[in-house]
Parts: sequence; C-alpha cells; structure tokens
Amino acid sequence: MTDAVRAAAPLVHCITNVIAASLSANALLAVGASPAMIDTPEEAGDFAAAADAVLVNLGSPTAARYAAIGAAVRSGTPWVLDPVGAGPLGHRTQVARDLLAHSPSIIRGNASEIIALADAGSGARGIDTAHTVADALPAALTLAERTGGVVAVSGPRDLIVSAGRRTWLTSGDPLLPLLSGSGCTLGALCAAYLGAGVGKHEAALAAHARAGAAAQLAARTVAGPGSFAAAWIDALHHLTSVEIADLVTWRDES
Amino acid sequence: MTDAVRAAAPLVHCITNVIAASLSANALLAVGASPAMIDTPEEAGDFAAAADAVLVNLGSPTAARYAAIGAAVRSGTPWVLDPVGAGPLGHRTQVARDLLAHSPSIIRGNASEIIALADAGSGARGIDTAHTVADALPAALTLAERTGGVVAVSGPRDLIVSAGRRTWLTSGDPLLPLLSGSGCTLGALCAAYLGAGVGKHEAALAAHARAGAAAQLAARTVAGPGSFAAAWIDALHHLTSVEIADLVTWRDES
Amino acid sequence: MTDAVRAAAPLVHCITNVIAASLSANALLAVGASPAMIDTPEEAGDFAAAADAVLVNLGSPTAARYAAIGAAVRSGTPWVLDPVGAGPLGHRTQVARDLLAHSPSIIRGNASEIIALADAGSGARGIDTAHTVADALPAALTLAERTGGVVAVSGPRDLIVSAGRRTWLTSGDPLLPLLSGSGCTLGALCAAYLGAGVGKHEAALAAHARAGAAAQLAARTVAGPGSFAAAWIDALHHLTSVEIADLVTWRDES
Repeated sequence: MTDAVRAAAPLVHCITNVIAASLSANALLAVGASPAMIDTPEEAGDFAAAADAVLVNLGSPTAARYAAIGAAVRSGTPWVLDPVGAGPLGHRTQVARDLLAHSPSIIRGNASEIIALADAGSGARGIDTAHTVADALPAALTLAERTGGVVAVSGPRDLIVSAGRRTWLTSGDPLLPLLSGSGCTLGALCAAYLGAGVGKHEAALAAHARAGAAAQLAARTVAGPGSFAAAWIDALHHLTSVEIADLVTWRDES
Repeated sequence: MTDAVRAAAPLVHCITNVIAASLSANALLAVGASPAMIDTPEEAGDFAAAADAVLVNLGSPTAARYAAIGAAVRSGTPWVLDPVGAGPLGHRTQVARDLLAHSPSIIRGNASEIIALADAGSGARGIDTAHTVADALPAALTLAERTGGVVAVSGPRDLIVSAGRRTWLTSGDPLLPLLSGSGCTLGALCAAYLGAGVGKHEAALAAHARAGAAAQLAARTVAGPGSFAAAWIDALHHLTSVEIADLVTWRDES
Repeated sequence: MTDAVRAAAPLVHCITNVIAASLSANALLAVGASPAMIDTPEEAGDFAAAADAVLVNLGSPTAARYAAIGAAVRSGTPWVLDPVGAGPLGHRTQVARDLLAHSPSIIRGNASEIIALADAGSGARGIDTAHTVADALPAALTLAERTGGVVAVSGPRDLIVSAGRRTWLTSGDPLLPLLSGSGCTLGALCAAYLGAGVGKHEAALAAHARAGAAAQLAARTVAGPGSFAAAWIDALHHLTSVEIADLVTWRDES
C-alpha cells in the first residue's frame, strides 16, 4: 500500500521557527511531500491559497511572521496549529488563542501547551511540558469542541481527540525529545497527511505513528542523540506501512 | 593540483535564508572557504566591500535582509544571485528582477526560477521546479546577455550559459534534492570559487562539479537522505580534483 | 560523580543566531539542560527572569532581537555574552560594548572578538580570528576587571581569565572549528553550567573542557566535518567526568 503522502506529494506551506525549519523541511522531503518555508507577509496569503496544507508554528516569531500567519490562515487551505511556548510566553499564548477563531484542522502540542491554549492554566517554566498527556485530556476535549478540529497531545503516549473519537497511540523513543525541533516536525507531518487528503483525525494519527515508528527504527542503530537525527530522517524515508503497523500500537477509547 | 578555493581561502559573505544557512556555512568551511553570514542592513555594505565574494539568496527574506542585500550589491564585490522562489512568489520575483541591474556575476537557480526571472512565465506552484533544465535555455541566454554574467540552471543535468559559451554538466545523485538547502548551498559554492579568483563561467562549473561529485561519493555509503547530509559535507571536504574529473562529465556546446 | 548540568537540568534561555540555534539547542539537550530559544521583545524579559541562565549571542541580529537582549540582560539572571563578529562589524561591536554595563557573568569569544570588545583594535576581516589566544590576554584582563566577570578566549588552547585567576586549557580537535556554530554552542554550554549553579570561572572551564573533550572523542570515529557534527553531540551526551579529566589538561597560572 503506497503511503498517502508519497502518492499525493502535497505542497506543504510551512510558517515555522528557525530552529526546526531545516529539520522539518528534510522530514517532509523524506516522506515525499514538497515543503516550502514561506513566511513573508506579502507572499504568505497567496502561497497558502495555492498550497495543499499550511503549518503554523509559533516558535521564534517575528512581527512579519505573525502578519504572514494572519494572511495564511484566511486562505481557506486546511491548516495545522502548533502553539510552541503557549503558557510561559504570554504574548504568543494570546496570538494562539486568537488563531482558534480560524478553525485549525489539527492542533498539535505538548500537554502544557494544550492546557494553556484552552486557558486552563499552565505550570510550564520553559518550552518543555510540565504535565502528563493525560492531564491535558479535558483541555483537548474543550479545544476540539470549540474548533471542530482535531487536537493531538504529543508525549510518551500520544492522545488524539476529535468530536466523538479519542485515540491513544504508543510509539516513539526517548531519543526523540532530545532532538530539538522534532515536535515541530511532527506538526509538519500532520500538515503533510492533511495536504494529501487524509481525514483530519486519521492525518494526525498517521503523522504521529510514522514519526514514532521512525524513532523506534532509528534508535536501534545509533550512538546517541546526534546520530539519531540523521537516522530518524532515513527511517521516515524508508518506513513502510507494514513496519509502522508492527511498531506502533493504538486504540480508540469511547 | 590544489583546489582554487582551498588555496585562496576566500571570505564569502552570505546573505541567505534561515533553512540553508547552517548547511551552506558548513559546506563553505568544508571546501576551505571562510563563510560569514551577515544580513544586517547597518553592516552588510561595509562587510561586502571587504569580502572576496557575496552570495545573495532570496529564501525566507525580511525587510531588513532586503536592505542588507541592497547595500551589499552596491559594494563592487563580485556576487551570486540565487532567486529562490522566483515565479510563484510575486514580491521577491520583482526584487530579483530589480537586482539584475546590479550585474550579478553568476545567477544560479532551478529551471522554473530562471524562466520566471527572465519574465518568461512560470508554471511552478511551490519552490521546486516545474520545468526541465532544457526548457530554461532561452531564459538563461536572455539573462546572460542582459547581465553580462553567467547563468547556471541546476537540475539532473546542469546547464551553464555565458556570452559565447554553453556547458552541460552531468553529475549528482537523486538524494541531493532531498536535502533541503542543497541548491542554496550550490549557490554559496559558486560564490566561493568566484571569491577565489576563478573566472565566472569556470567558477559556476567548478561549484556544480564539486557539489555533484560529492553527492555521488556520499550516496555510495549512506542509508538515506538524513545520513546523506553529513556524508555530502564529508565528501565536499575530501574530494580531490582527480576524483571530480572521474565522477563528472561535461561538454561545451556551440 | 554526576555532572552538575545533568543534576540540575537548568532552563537555559538562548538569544542566539539562526545558524547556531539548532546545534546549540541539541547540544544543551545532550548535556541535560532545558534549552529555550526565545528572542521576542515582548517575551524575553519575563522569560529571562524565570530562567536559570541566559545566553546572548550577537550573530545575525535583528532590531527585534536587540530589543529582546535589552530586556533579558536587565532581568537579573546570570548571563553569558558571545560577541560574534565584534571587530569587523561596527554596529554590533558598539552594541556589545554597551552590554558590558549589564555585567555579563561570562564573556566568551575568539581572540579577535575579545580584543575588539576591549577596544584594543581588531585585525579580523571576517568572523574568524586573526589573532592567537595569547594576543588576547591583555584585553581579557581588561574586560574581566571592567565587568567583574569571567572572560573565556576560545582557540586551539583556551584561556579563561577572572579576577585573580588565569587558566589555560588544552583540548579540542581541528574538526571543531570546521563545524559552523560550534563556538556559539560553547557559549550556550557556559550558560548551562552557570545555570546549574556552578561558579562562573568553573562554569566556563567546565564548558570548554566538555566541548573540547567531546570533540576529541568524536574525531576518533568520523570521516570528516559533516559526520563530526552528530558525533560531537553524541559525545557531549555520553561523556563522563572521568573521560573529560583524561582527555583535557589545564593549569592555573598566577
């Protein structure tokens, strides 16, 4: 079975942070998508309208990039919101909340970010989570209801919530969070599946499964978090649906 | 025979995008050049004047970076134009066309970018090419005549055009376009050879040959596009003139 | 003996350049710190106040990032100044000199940057040093006295100077300066040790020793500067205090 992204080669418009941009572009190329990192206010609206999906990631923002985001989310193209730093960073937390009005198809973040986005408090000091994934379930349900979209909470086990469906997914490896930008790249992969025409709950699920399974494969052969980065991209490239099904477990919960 | 860049260790002033900046700096260090990524409007003019060559890459631009570019191209130092995204991105396409008045020594892009820059239409949706290299020959001839410089169209076969000379070069590997920023890095290598005092047609040729031969060597040992990145830098560092001559074929066409 | 950074897991607020950001974040994760790359003027002051240490690196600055730096250095949190490009780049040289009034705990740079920062002239054309480490001793003494902090001059031998103490440290490998952003990452590691509560002279010493020893380990197994990058991060992650003591030599000089 050919993977949906490789079959469709979607054009994925990324408005993302400078730390993750290169890793995310390489991951998108590895899975067969066509990435374009376009964050200029003069160009982002038109480009988003022509793209198959848009990723909006709030890491290391600038005033110009906020303007580009504003234009892109009005384009009508399905988009993913990754609220990096929501919680401890007040300005962008408000930006992220305001963006909810533009109906992201998928929201992807760590537990603390999802909790902060739902205005349910935040205990995070830095950009890493201070909560477990299960802590974020009420916030995820709130956000899914409010936006009509899917909310994915990434962690050791991932939780994917949408109207009437909750999926728990177990995959990944402890080396993955030691790779800066890997969470952001997961958001980019959500956009790739969305851009390939996969339904939004399935798109979030497929992205998390692929990223997690690739981490498991990569971890088998590497000497540490540095060599893991390249091996993860290699595995994202080579991984088959059969391998993913073998490496990852998930179940829906009513 | 010592490579010209390693012998001269040129100071290469790069004004480039955030996705390719790190890869390009590492590639320049690998071949023996001294890279400096300076995109501040207050500093770019003076720095360009002291540098041996300047790279102007239009990926992920900002207003400040455009001002830095404006200062750098007036410095009198030989420079390379890489019109990333020309075509689908209207604002920077116009910027790129305006920059032609400042006589870039080398213009390097993919086929769609070169066609768009020559105002000959563009079918690209994203930042990847929608044309073959051969499609871009008329546009390359037009640009070479208009600027007095060299136009390099990168692709599976590369085409290098200047007044009275056309060279076709065969090298590279399919993994190279899976590495985000590799095309931009090729532009940086063009600047390195230019900064080493090599004539502009030969500089473009040498950069494409080295990048392509390094890709061929790297591809022999790697497991995928992730591990390819490091192996490509390693090969750029170690490659000898004899190996390049062995791996790459080129011919002039009248 | 557990390393101080791994034991404390300090939150390290980095305001750094786009070329080094990803490498520095990965290095901080590798040694057990929690990096956050926050360079927004609206958020940097509050975030710095909550962080354990701040890194201020002047590579590829923007007006917004300068404002973020201004807010962060007023937070009262211990901070490291890395004056990238001081000397040939006039605007940021002045910014760096003005920042001295905010008492950085550690200043880390190459010899030419330290000399330029002390207003003792600069012969550098590019961003690489044009001086030996020993050349920078008088400037380092001046800066240490003026700021009450530690001045670390990085090179083939590193010099660490503070009131009443001078340490020379021998470590590293010639591949390290071929990795773009490795010097900047050394500044980030200084901030990590500072944030872990280590005294500032010892923090600078520990960071240089760890970075240098990791380079020596990494160089043993790699094929060139490309594969060195991943191996360096791996070694930063795995290195023990015993290995560092075995690989690095230092001595205090009165």
